[in-house]
Amino acid sequence: MQPKTFDYEEVALIWDEEKKKTFLFTLKKGKELGTHKGKIFHDDIVGKVEGDRIYSHTGAVFRVFRPLIYDKIMKIQRKTQIVYPKDAAWFVLSLDIKPGDKVIEMGTGSGAFTILLAQLVGDSGKVYTFDRRKEFLENAVSNIKKFGFEARVEYHLLNAGDKFPVSGVDSVFLDLPEPWLAIPPSNMALLPGRPLACIVPTAEQLSKTVETLGENNFAVMDVIEILERKILVRKKQGVRPFEKMVGFTGYLVSARKLI
Amino acid sequence: MQPKTFDYEEVALIWDEEKKKTFLFTLKKGKELGTHKGKIFHDDIVGKVEGDRIYSHTGAVFRVFRPLIYDKIMKIQRKTQIVYPKDAAWFVLSLDIKPGDKVIEMGTGSGAFTILLAQLVGDSGKVYTFDRRKEFLENAVSNIKKFGFEARVEYHLLNAGDKFPVSGVDSVFLDLPEPWLAIPPSNMALLPGRPLACIVPTAEQLSKTVETLGENNFAVMDVIEILERKILVRKKQGVRPFEKMVGFTGYLVSARKLI
Amino acid sequence: MQPKTFDYEEVALIWDEEKKKTFLFTLKKGKELGTHKGKIFHDDIVGKVEGDRIYSHTGAVFRVFRPLIYDKIMKIQRKTQIVYPKDAAWFVLSLDIKPGDKVIEMGTGSGAFTILLAQLVGDSGKVYTFDRRKEFLENAVSNIKKFGFEARVEYHLLNAGDKFPVSGVDSVFLDLPEPWLAIPPSNMALLPGRPLACIVPTAEQLSKTVETLGENNFAVMDVIEILERKILVRKKQGVRPFEKMVGFTGYLVSARKLI
Amino acid sequence: MQPKTFDYEEVALIWDEEKKKTFLFTLKKGKELGTHKGKIFHDDIVGKVEGDRIYSHTGAVFRVFRPLIYDKIMKIQRKTQIVYPKDAAWFVLSLDIKPGDKVIEMGTGSGAFTILLAQLVGDSGKVYTFDRRKEFLENAVSNIKKFGFEARVEYHLLNAGDKFPVSGVDSVFLDLPEPWLAIPPSNMALLPGRPLACIVPTAEQLSKTVETLGENNFAVMDVIEILERKILVRKKQGVRPFEKMVGFTGYLVSARKLI
Repeated sequence: MQPKTFDYEEVALIWDEEKKKTFLFTLKKGKELGTHKGKIFHDDIVGKVEGDRIYSHTGAVFRVFRPLIYDKIMKIQRKTQIVYPKDAAWFVLSLDIKPGDKVIEMGTGSGAFTILLAQLVGDSGKVYTFDRRKEFLENAVSNIKKFGFEARVEYHLLNAGDKFPVSGVDSVFLDLPEPWLAIPPSNMALLPGRPLACIVPTAEQLSKTVETLGENNFAVMDVIEILERKILVRKKQGVRPFEKMVGFTGYLVSARKLI
Repeated sequence: MQPKTFDYEEVALIWDEEKKKTFLFTLKKGKELGTHKGKIFHDDIVGKVEGDRIYSHTGAVFRVFRPLIYDKIMKIQRKTQIVYPKDAAWFVLSLDIKPGDKVIEMGTGSGAFTILLAQLVGDSGKVYTFDRRKEFLENAVSNIKKFGFEARVEYHLLNAGDKFPVSGVDSVFLDLPEPWLAIPPSNMALLPGRPLACIVPTAEQLSKTVETLGENNFAVMDVIEILERKILVRKKQGVRPFEKMVGFTGYLVSARKLI
Repeated sequence: MQPKTFDYEEVALIWDEEKKKTFLFTLKKGKELGTHKGKIFHDDIVGKVEGDRIYSHTGAVFRVFRPLIYDKIMKIQRKTQIVYPKDAAWFVLSLDIKPGDKVIEMGTGSGAFTILLAQLVGDSGKVYTFDRRKEFLENAVSNIKKFGFEARVEYHLLNAGDKFPVSGVDSVFLDLPEPWLAIPPSNMALLPGRPLACIVPTAEQLSKTVETLGENNFAVMDVIEILERKILVRKKQGVRPFEKMVGFTGYLVSARKLI
Repeated sequence: MQPKTFDYEEVALIWDEEKKKTFLFTLKKGKELGTHKGKIFHDDIVGKVEGDRIYSHTGAVFRVFRPLIYDKIMKIQRKTQIVYPKDAAWFVLSLDIKPGDKVIEMGTGSGAFTILLAQLVGDSGKVYTFDRRKEFLENAVSNIKKFGFEARVEYHLLNAGDKFPVSGVDSVFLDLPEPWLAIPPSNMALLPGRPLACIVPTAEQLSKTVETLGENNFAVMDVIEILERKILVRKKQGVRPFEKMVGFTGYLVSARKLI
């Protein structure tokens, strides 16, 4: 089986192993990428296979890859705080995502989690994403298109608390300042027994969210937070955690609709 | 849209909200489930919708659900340590899983992660899972069948280090005592640029794994550990983390194949 | 310099290395200690030096020590939740403890933190400890006496919110269900600029405590929590964190009195 | 009881509540302190009581305090990594520190932990601190003198592995790149049954340290790491952990000398 080589209009990821730095961009004829170690010519990448070496005009060595989902999430154009991979991953399980699912996301933000959902529901699924801020929605759609997921995503302007223009969905994800507002419409849109999940930033908001879920026919299943700790592995000096870490991103809640 | 009611031969999940306890079983005509709060008759569940109330013979109230992926993972018949949801979720992202993927898993164990992979690759994908212990493989297959994923999974007895009987796969996951043994055959089976991930239990094994990856044409992308902290949310007493937590399950490694 | 040998009426700590288990008791003529590995005769310990081997009647080997402060804290007779060493240690710094200090503790509990304070303020210092529950105070005093600290500790029954019968103290520590009640009397008892610290169990109580401190002439300096992670170090299997850990004990607050 | 007012030659701590920023300096006649909010005149502080307001020449308000032990540790002149308060606090307990103790510290560094030990052993105790680097020792001594602890501290140049010029000590603390070198001399200097503690940066060094302790007559009691998580408490927005945290400082080991 021949691996697919890079072509123009594809998204490529250049990786500098030494600096652990990546660059994500769409391949264009005649264009070049400026890096801290010299220029990389797009034309040099076309025809290459993933994992191959690419040299800058100064002779510095890089590797070229297609972006994995982690890169897609981390390298989107951000206009908002994104759902971090550590949390997004947990939501994939708590929302019981699978190919063909119809999923509501309220609070599109920059579209990071939308892209993950779109990747996982596949061509037979659909992500319905809503945001009340036009400029955020437009930015998110631009991100979604970059990775070719636009056919799997429907997006609309919507205020928190408004009825969703879709029902019978398999799961609902909420990422907005006042998630409790969106709980009654989520209840209407969701199939019985199916999961709702959300991320909330403070203990007081968590408390209000959990209470509102209970009042709206939901059984709260899990409330957690995820800490990701990066580990440094060096042959000579040995193994230890990194000196810095992300201390907090949000409380994660999962619930199921009752009848 | 009418929600699908429960039928015989389906897997059901009974949930006791008060005790936060669940029971998973296959519905059989005339059978009963013994709980700490009395007997539940399978026949009472058939015809019900997910999220509905079920009463034991003593009048205790339960809820009935279909198992979500989290329940499937946690409620399998275990003959080994399983990959915990917190870690399994991270691997879904680091392995860049999507519908249609062909994935190798070395170290089937009890099949918990196999089931998650099978759910996510869908009908068009395939999970090739290998273990060197026949009794573990048989138990895992029984778990996989319970959730109807057998058509998506191929399984074989295989020793760590042996060549995989499949190639051109999209990703490789390793969960075995000596993951370094399986790295050269993983390199042969994997498409260029694609991800390999593994879980290792100690710092020394982590060091050896990372070194072996470097020697076998892999770029190590991330080494982390995931801590999941459960949060207690109670209206009267307030919000705080639980007193107990899982302190460690393993170091998680992700890498990409170079050419 | 000759190390001091054990004598009757001293407190001894027997340690089983294999099981990582300790036994704390006062040496009495003719008495014996029952362990899971046979009887240990008190008379065998008298005359021994710390760190020496002691054999049970079945020939099992133990080590004998004097209790360190950690053992004193963990082995007291408990009638309440204690301040754990990980937190108690942080309070020693936030309360700026030193020999000669006069310290108020409101919420004696079982006396674990009282004992640490008494050890550190020395013969020239004084710990004023208060509790509203007579049976807890009596138990705590019995623990304090066991380690010979009674001359350094004054104790009184007192309700939260009542004026302390002492003033001009160097620091104040609060460990009670409603710490805010004790903040105004703490302000009256404390020297200007000096620290107050407290432990609170939930986010809502934390919020109320911090607000009350601000309203009562205190500058809040730090709000933290301490996580202690035990590490398993084994020559053959390698290094990794333990599978279980304490997930939460409390939020720790430190403040300084303004004028 | 009249609180002591500030005088020249004393160390003062200026605190900007809004920015949570502190400045530590010795009060000198006629001098001024430059801050981001204007000049503060030392003469304005003399005669003031701790906790009082101080105004800069632009009218910005600050508070003046004497440094607590936490400020002393964090505000020393650093030439090395210091032992952080979260870890230093744990060592106070594991070393069973009390007034009058004689303590060895190998690896003076910048003197942060030396200062804490000196504060706690009091006038009747002694800290014997050793470093192999003259310039570090000189810097540490200058830090120790700033807080008036010089009479409680003896310092010497010494290489790791050399015999300590003191014996019969109550505890030993090691903070150096190869702690195993200092274990045999620590064994000679320490009283039987008494504690040794050390901080080590990697899993491999931890493994070697624990093994060397076992070979040199020490019983390893605890191996842990301490994570400190800062909590943000805001009246309007609510309670949540900070977004950033220190991810790792070192593995902490405690042991006791056997005979």
